[in-house]
Amino acid sequence: MDRQASIDALFNPRSIAVIGASATRGKLGNDVMRNLIDSGYEGRIYPINPGGGEIMGNKVYRSILDIAGNIEVAVVVIPAKGVLQVVDECGRKGVKALVVITAGFKEVGHEGQEVEKKMVELAEKYGMVIQGPNCLGIINTSCPYNASFSSGTPQKGSIAFASQSGALMTGILDWSLMETIGFSKFVSLGNKAHLDEADFIEAFGRDPDSTFVLLYIESVVNGRKFMEACRKVVTQKPIFVVKSGISAAGARAASSHTGSLAGSDTAYDVAFKQCGVSRAYSMAELFDVANVYDDMHLPAGNRVAIVTNAGGPGILTTDACEANGLSIASLSPTTIELLKSSLPPAAAVYNPIDALGTAQPEDYQLCVEAALKDENVDSVITLLTPQAMTKVSETARALVESHEKYPNKPLLTVFMGGNSMVYARVVLNAAKIPVFDFPERAVHALAELYHYTVRRDSLKDETPPQFKADKERVSSIIEAVHRDGRRVLLGSEAHAIAEAYGIPVARIKLATSSDEAKTIASELGFPVVLKIASPDIVHKSDIGGIRMGLKSAQEVEDAFLQILGSAHAHMPKAIIYGVDVQEMAEKGKELIVGCSRDIQFGPLVMFGAGGIYVNFLHDVAFRLAPMTRSDATELINQTKTSVLLKGVRGEPPSDMAALEDAILRISQLVSDFEDIVELDINPLFCYEKGKGISAVDVKITISG
Amino acid sequence: MDRQASIDALFNPRSIAVIGASATRGKLGNDVMRNLIDSGYEGRIYPINPGGGEIMGNKVYRSILDIAGNIEVAVVVIPAKGVLQVVDECGRKGVKALVVITAGFKEVGHEGQEVEKKMVELAEKYGMVIQGPNCLGIINTSCPYNASFSSGTPQKGSIAFASQSGALMTGILDWSLMETIGFSKFVSLGNKAHLDEADFIEAFGRDPDSTFVLLYIESVVNGRKFMEACRKVVTQKPIFVVKSGISAAGARAASSHTGSLAGSDTAYDVAFKQCGVSRAYSMAELFDVANVYDDMHLPAGNRVAIVTNAGGPGILTTDACEANGLSIASLSPTTIELLKSSLPPAAAVYNPIDALGTAQPEDYQLCVEAALKDENVDSVITLLTPQAMTKVSETARALVESHEKYPNKPLLTVFMGGNSMVYARVVLNAAKIPVFDFPERAVHALAELYHYTVRRDSLKDETPPQFKADKERVSSIIEAVHRDGRRVLLGSEAHAIAEAYGIPVARIKLATSSDEAKTIASELGFPVVLKIASPDIVHKSDIGGIRMGLKSAQEVEDAFLQILGSAHAHMPKAIIYGVDVQEMAEKGKELIVGCSRDIQFGPLVMFGAGGIYVNFLHDVAFRLAPMTRSDATELINQTKTSVLLKGVRGEPPSDMAALEDAILRISQLVSDFEDIVELDINPLFCYEKGKGISAVDVKITISG
Repeated sequence: MDRQASIDALFNPRSIAVIGASATRGKLGNDVMRNLIDSGYEGRIYPINPGGGEIMGNKVYRSILDIAGNIEVAVVVIPAKGVLQVVDECGRKGVKALVVITAGFKEVGHEGQEVEKKMVELAEKYGMVIQGPNCLGIINTSCPYNASFSSGTPQKGSIAFASQSGALMTGILDWSLMETIGFSKFVSLGNKAHLDEADFIEAFGRDPDSTFVLLYIESVVNGRKFMEACRKVVTQKPIFVVKSGISAAGARAASSHTGSLAGSDTAYDVAFKQCGVSRAYSMAELFDVANVYDDMHLPAGNRVAIVTNAGGPGILTTDACEANGLSIASLSPTTIELLKSSLPPAAAVYNPIDALGTAQPEDYQLCVEAALKDENVDSVITLLTPQAMTKVSETARALVESHEKYPNKPLLTVFMGGNSMVYARVVLNAAKIPVFDFPERAVHALAELYHYTVRRDSLKDETPPQFKADKERVSSIIEAVHRDGRRVLLGSEAHAIAEAYGIPVARIKLATSSDEAKTIASELGFPVVLKIASPDIVHKSDIGGIRMGLKSAQEVEDAFLQILGSAHAHMPKAIIYGVDVQEMAEKGKELIVGCSRDIQFGPLVMFGAGGIYVNFLHDVAFRLAPMTRSDATELINQTKTSVLLKGVRGEPPSDMAALEDAILRISQLVSDFEDIVELDINPLFCYEKGKGISAVDVKITISG
Repeated sequence: MDRQASIDALFNPRSIAVIGASATRGKLGNDVMRNLIDSGYEGRIYPINPGGGEIMGNKVYRSILDIAGNIEVAVVVIPAKGVLQVVDECGRKGVKALVVITAGFKEVGHEGQEVEKKMVELAEKYGMVIQGPNCLGIINTSCPYNASFSSGTPQKGSIAFASQSGALMTGILDWSLMETIGFSKFVSLGNKAHLDEADFIEAFGRDPDSTFVLLYIESVVNGRKFMEACRKVVTQKPIFVVKSGISAAGARAASSHTGSLAGSDTAYDVAFKQCGVSRAYSMAELFDVANVYDDMHLPAGNRVAIVTNAGGPGILTTDACEANGLSIASLSPTTIELLKSSLPPAAAVYNPIDALGTAQPEDYQLCVEAALKDENVDSVITLLTPQAMTKVSETARALVESHEKYPNKPLLTVFMGGNSMVYARVVLNAAKIPVFDFPERAVHALAELYHYTVRRDSLKDETPPQFKADKERVSSIIEAVHRDGRRVLLGSEAHAIAEAYGIPVARIKLATSSDEAKTIASELGFPVVLKIASPDIVHKSDIGGIRMGLKSAQEVEDAFLQILGSAHAHMPKAIIYGVDVQEMAEKGKELIVGCSRDIQFGPLVMFGAGGIYVNFLHDVAFRLAPMTRSDATELINQTKTSVLLKGVRGEPPSDMAALEDAILRISQLVSDFEDIVELDINPLFCYEKGKGISAVDVKITISG
């Protein structure tokens, strides 16, 4: 039985055993029993407890093995020390899925981690899946069943929510009951020892009751698996994620250029983008989106109509729309005519529609329905301020009617006020019309949904290109470096690797004597560049280790000796392999292409403005390798530098095709060789269209 | 009597006449009477109505002139057509301030505007001030009095709020009553015919009951006056503003480089920054800050302690702190010892302090008080999730006690949940402890208050420098251009103006024949640059109107003819004055200094990366002139380009002093001459330290 089929059983079990069920109030085993029964679960419930007896009308078994019938899901709430035994029993019994609520595993240290490992091994042996351990449990509102120790069960709805923090879920659940936000699934991920976020995302994707996926995660278990699951699901359903731990990750700044610009949170960010996942930066934002989406349709476009009874809030909403990439709809002539003939002359009949402070419920209804009907409008935001003549609750009820008449277009409401709005909020919430305090959050949430539709529609089913490459040559260079006990490649080695993957490089050879340097220089042709060749010296120019534009054999000889002298003076302990002699590349647009390896997501490719300014302009963008051609195009276009490359104010355009090609070849190289932990081409010169590129300085570090 | 003294009377009147008072429910004149009485106003109230009689126990007078006693403030709620007469009567009666609630003035068109103007003239004649017209009224909770038609009176508090939208105020008031946010003053600005936001800001500054100023504005009446008022007040009290109409202003993009980068909203943004005003981008943000500030002290620094009963929310809060420029406090050894000895071993005693899901009210109290006592902590954020053992309300009460023990350090709470938090919220609100749903908004609000303290402390009492300048020469050039019927200056004229203000420029002369060009070239010294001299041709290089690096008389002659030919071919209708011959400046760092004139705030100076890339890198910053030396330093430092100018990776530093000087001289020039509506130096070359700068291409446009 595969994982996904097991998760189906976990979502819709025909029978559940609660191992550690208790009749004592305040015990988790009691909470789980109560929730199971209160949630209206219609399958068989088997409480298991060595004490026997009866709990809430259900006969208690001493062991799962004592039960005659099939058990599909077992919820485990006994202390950690007994868990391995019951997992084994569950396996023997043929249980399909375990929800291990019990804590005291990986999160308490090494010993717990070992037990957790054994538990997973047992599950694998019997072909079971495990949710948790150390989790709140699972809730499926359409089964329905609540196998958790939450207080209360969420309302039925279309949002599937998985969270790495159980405590956070308790808050969200409590809050959702007040805000009338419904969920289809409510999954506490716990330690993710076996089933992880990717498994659940995929399951949510197949689940007909879920049309919207929300996640709170602190990390993913397997970056690639996560991306694949998201890519599969996101074409059908929006996935919104809050990923915390940004700042902790930020501290993990690596030493190379690439590393120092790309903390691990960058990898998450890029991964989300590359697989169409929408990232929210706060829980409020996440649930504002849920609030708008829940039972509403996605907006078909970005054209918003605003209906208000006051100018100020209308302006605020207009500002927020433009700031969030939404546009103010141009109402159709029919709509404008209708408004003109129905509203007082002082009313504003263009968008925002200001029905004035005297607006009555029927005025709101007229304006909102005109907007909902209008083909030029994709969504309607209705604003209300409690002025002297405003009938707040009646207006809410009128809007509910309008929404029922035109349910296919998103209708959002902003009722600006407090005490006098309480009842109206209840009315709107009950009708699943999202209601906000202030305009900006409403607009932001609507915009996020719109941007999801754009991202979804732009996802292409494309595979990374495969270039012909001399993999053997790369392997043999890497092996030689390993044998030499080094991690940092010499310039000549790094350039040879790039060349093996068809990347145009400035030719380079290592010279161990000044005579050899002169010979190489005349082979390459003057002028040449000399660079110190030492894995210990990273910033060569800082210690006088680079000499450029050497025009004769004599200059080469002098430079050779000066470089060695200077290197020795500055870094007497550095191991010197000699001096690299390199052909002098014609100057082009200075770019950087780099790669670091993220622990979760693999090779992270960076592109941007290069040269000595890379650390100061910070005009760089990232993509995870392997990259498709669209990825490469987007990577380039995401930088400001791309504007310069396209040619501005009379400058000729640069060779974008050659650049894209080089980026894709690097993507293939770092995907092929996991040994390469860092790669940096800086500068990479990009020439005029048709004249290609040149990798001038290639640095590579391999794993130890 | 000056405006401020009159506003004092408006804030604390000893007697009030309500002109248009009514006994009929639903009429504004009735609402105002009721609010006045309900708010507990202790002075004399004189209802005025031609109908006579009695209203709510007060004798009604037929005219203000019939009253024997003094009247300090008159509230006007009669229809617009009668307003001029009553204003005149008020003047004759010696009223100090009028609150004109009546609408139907400027906002309804030209006729209303004329009446509004006459009303102000009358007020000025009698030395009265007018609030409004077309406003909600005024509320002072410490007088106390409510002379508005609001429904309800805000709670007493320390926040002074002025708003250009009356409807918005009704929403805010309603909301504040629910959130228990108190106000000192509540002022509806209306049409701002006489008293404007600056008048009220200044008055709020002097008001001992107000310690915090909040504004909602759509525009200011007088930019300079606004800035002066803010500068005066902001050293004592935070000023937070929401300024709407960002997107409308964005549309007013001007044609020059400066203009196209600086919409008018930029001028507002810069003005706020330059006078220490904090800008909020949403009403929610504005009132989150108010919520945190109300009755709390400002944080003494940015070190935050976090106390939580769950890991996830702790991480979210940590992320939010770092993202908002707050730091996670390093707790003192005493605090850590105390926590270690008091909390369960699995608890986290470093910051964030995780007291675990089992945390009881006394655990919260212990942790929060340890943090409040700790010298390394400036503010405390307490997080709570409703877990199985959590006592929500009791914890709220425990926190109230802790806050009472240590009232001087900000204590914020985030109670994550809904229904089960309602009572706790009431408890916390009542104790003026801010409580939020989710961490991020709490952190953002706290950070805004911290950043205010930093901004306040960095405000310097500094005057703009005054350089010696040849003002007469500039005047005569401008006059000559006016006489010529032009608005765009020729290159030679623009360079001469810059030179007159001591800005090093590339020397330039206009040649009207190729012979003249050759003579000028040899005077200036080869190589030279030739540029078409035509006010009609803005982008000279696009039409082949520039030739650089001309090394001989022959090259100059050829170029002269080619340029004229090319200009004629591309723009046959352009008026050509000849060709400018310019010395070829040595290349330096390419910068831009520009200036446009904002309708509200005057000359807006731009600085940033120059050359042909200016429109692509968008690395520019703005300041309003006249600028102080600190303004100029900050202006430069705000750009990324400043990093390059300081010298990176072995490059020598640029002449920052000369650059700063040039910017200040330009600031003085555009302040001295209001005629200059646009000025652009692009490129301005900045050389190595000690080698100065050169304004290579100066463009100036004057008003018509």
